[in-house]
Amino acid sequence: MRHLLGIEEMSRAEIERVLETSEAMLEISQREIKRVPTLRGRTVINVFLEASTRTRVSFEIAAKRLSADAINVSRSGSSLSKAETLADMARNLAAMSADVLVVRDSTAGVPHMLAERVRVPVVNAGDGCHEHPTQALLDAFTLRQSLGSLENRVIAIVGDISHSRVARSDIHCFTKLGAEVRVAGPPTMMPAGIEALGVKPCFSLEQALAGADVIVMLRIQQERLDGALFPSIREYARTFGLTQRTLGLAKPDAIVLHPGPINRGVEIASDVADAEPSRILDQVTNGVAVRMAVLYLLTGGAN
Amino acid sequence: MRHLLGIEEMSRAEIERVLETSEAMLEISQREIKRVPTLRGRTVINVFLEASTRTRVSFEIAAKRLSADAINVSRSGSSLSKAETLADMARNLAAMSADVLVVRDSTAGVPHMLAERVRVPVVNAGDGCHEHPTQALLDAFTLRQSLGSLENRVIAIVGDISHSRVARSDIHCFTKLGAEVRVAGPPTMMPAGIEALGVKPCFSLEQALAGADVIVMLRIQQERLDGALFPSIREYARTFGLTQRTLGLAKPDAIVLHPGPINRGVEIASDVADAEPSRILDQVTNGVAVRMAVLYLLTGGAN
Amino acid sequence: MRHLLGIEEMSRAEIERVLETSEAMLEISQREIKRVPTLRGRTVINVFLEASTRTRVSFEIAAKRLSADAINVSRSGSSLSKAETLADMARNLAAMSADVLVVRDSTAGVPHMLAERVRVPVVNAGDGCHEHPTQALLDAFTLRQSLGSLENRVIAIVGDISHSRVARSDIHCFTKLGAEVRVAGPPTMMPAGIEALGVKPCFSLEQALAGADVIVMLRIQQERLDGALFPSIREYARTFGLTQRTLGLAKPDAIVLHPGPINRGVEIASDVADAEPSRILDQVTNGVAVRMAVLYLLTGGAN
Repeated sequence: MRHLLGIEEMSRAEIERVLETSEAMLEISQREIKRVPTLRGRTVINVFLEASTRTRVSFEIAAKRLSADAINVSRSGSSLSKAETLADMARNLAAMSADVLVVRDSTAGVPHMLAERVRVPVVNAGDGCHEHPTQALLDAFTLRQSLGSLENRVIAIVGDISHSRVARSDIHCFTKLGAEVRVAGPPTMMPAGIEALGVKPCFSLEQALAGADVIVMLRIQQERLDGALFPSIREYARTFGLTQRTLGLAKPDAIVLHPGPINRGVEIASDVADAEPSRILDQVTNGVAVRMAVLYLLTGGAN
Repeated sequence: MRHLLGIEEMSRAEIERVLETSEAMLEISQREIKRVPTLRGRTVINVFLEASTRTRVSFEIAAKRLSADAINVSRSGSSLSKAETLADMARNLAAMSADVLVVRDSTAGVPHMLAERVRVPVVNAGDGCHEHPTQALLDAFTLRQSLGSLENRVIAIVGDISHSRVARSDIHCFTKLGAEVRVAGPPTMMPAGIEALGVKPCFSLEQALAGADVIVMLRIQQERLDGALFPSIREYARTFGLTQRTLGLAKPDAIVLHPGPINRGVEIASDVADAEPSRILDQVTNGVAVRMAVLYLLTGGAN
Repeated sequence: MRHLLGIEEMSRAEIERVLETSEAMLEISQREIKRVPTLRGRTVINVFLEASTRTRVSFEIAAKRLSADAINVSRSGSSLSKAETLADMARNLAAMSADVLVVRDSTAGVPHMLAERVRVPVVNAGDGCHEHPTQALLDAFTLRQSLGSLENRVIAIVGDISHSRVARSDIHCFTKLGAEVRVAGPPTMMPAGIEALGVKPCFSLEQALAGADVIVMLRIQQERLDGALFPSIREYARTFGLTQRTLGLAKPDAIVLHPGPINRGVEIASDVADAEPSRILDQVTNGVAVRMAVLYLLTGGAN
């Protein structure tokens, strides 16, 4: 593994290696002294050109718990507006002997473009509507904690499938790990030809949740709900929101995930998000462990 | 002490414990190698949702001198505009195994609300017009350096008492430590019923400073002076500004504090701010020590 | 050396001491574990009041590779708009026992003003159109890697000489090290009386490059090209842009530098920037080493 650009490019064995490495990393964050010297003297640069608090903090904590030096870069001013300038910035960071570049950008493909231009490992921390591979890896890790294996599990991903990089990465990850994946959402949020990814599109929550082991609720971008893709937030919540009632459509011990931040009362009711079937905070905890594993594996910590 | 939310909730013994711990911390910043391993592997997250350079830097330095990992979060975008979202963000940071959350927000009560929702210790780094407890602790620490004890000392706090979280925290702190506290300012800046906090309101600088051991000048928010609460900056400076002349109203060896940043020539004249009776830069130095003590005590460093 | 404010104030011996110290620092960034304990427990504060990603990251990496605690301060809000407030902020940072302040500001003279007001060493990381001394030092370091000595070398600096702090610092640095310096650009970008700095002004690229050992291309601020100082970007590129053809005017083994970020196709063609004669990425690599040397020398690391 030279970069982590997308789950699509990964083999099942590579995914499993990250998940297994994450087990050991999880234990570090449970110690009183949450720091190991593994990546001491390595430089991890978080290039977050699209605003993000949670994912940036998760990567920064991951780097620091491995004793790496973590540097944050955000978009400031307009000099980074062109792709070519981004490539030059990445070349510059590489020339400063960075060991890994963690890149988030609102444009799909930016991490891949940078990976072609620099010799430093690149981690995609979310690129437009394309992929968010560490989210899928932490989702899979969280599911394996409860289910052991994803083999033949029924997983429903519900929301704006078209615009969700989480959905895309989750689909690749869960299908590679042997799960049966359904995607559900209003027709305006369902990409044409999604079946080609090996998933079953559903146009009602009932159809998607029937017999599901796992429900992944996606965050709804509220600006997409004002008439363009759906009549209203209230209508969306009524039709595709997860509540105690609709949760009952799934298997009795079904698990609920959400990549966060959650819109309480829109795609998920508060009492579902905060109670037993939800693994939402476990996902956050596991996110640090998975990112520690990714940084470790990419910087050759394994040698 | 599980959180540091306000001086109002603290007992005199708790205040004194912080001040005594701060003594040892002060010495660390005077060494050539200003770093001890005490909080190695601990994660301190500075959540500064209201802009602040000085207080954030002070907390960040405090964390780093104790070898903690310090992470900064600022308000970015609008996703944090609702209180409920803030609580979810805090739950997320807690799920990443943060050891302490340092929170500043422009709304009073936010740190308390978060403290109720997460199991991680919360430090209030300033909440609206409510409290700024570490400022009061560093003020008390600075006064004890010069005066030994605050018992029966006369302390005048001058400025916009209504809108000052520093005034509020100082009043609680100084009265608990046995001082006699007077507050002074124009009637439009004096909260009704302030006597209930055990202080004496004064409506002239002369009355407030007569026989005072200590003068705490508050920063005037210039936008509050343009007619709404006071005729003009010039008029305010003439009536409530501390100059060499008005300083003469207090005891000959009276000490001057100011939480900073100072408005030179408005609430305080440059020659007073920069000369002997002023302990303004000592306050800044002591602020790092007091915050080190607070982080140490809250993260169980004492065990 | 108490501060690093400008190359103008430095003696040749001081410049050479920084360059020699940088040699040892360069090697650290080539190790697998790029971190030495030299400045452990020292506090380096990067006060970047003008936006800058590259230079700030370079200083931050430099501080961290020496194990110093690095703190970033950027301009936030408007409270720092007056020079006097800046001085108070610097006094505050000094009172927090900072060991060095690295200062960038869009106004010439700010680092000098701060250096007069605080006892902490100040590094000028770029002040308006005045100086950018670490850029000149890394340029000189990069040239010495290829040329051994700058003595009697012919160096052409091309671009907007009037508004370039890099040009100013380079001129002082290269002439002090014995080089023959020419400056070239359109008349509207050439300061009157530039000869007084010991350089030869040229008004054509041909004249500047004839027999040159080194070509330093400056970044063109595109907003200065829309008619005010020059007819158009295209016209500028045609007249003063470095291409394979115009590169042929210089010595066959001439070296090309650029402080970055580059405007591809404007002041420099992509194939020149990315190929053999260009040392642009070496400059970036060396920038970290030079800044490590500066931090080390100023914080008394030498003792």
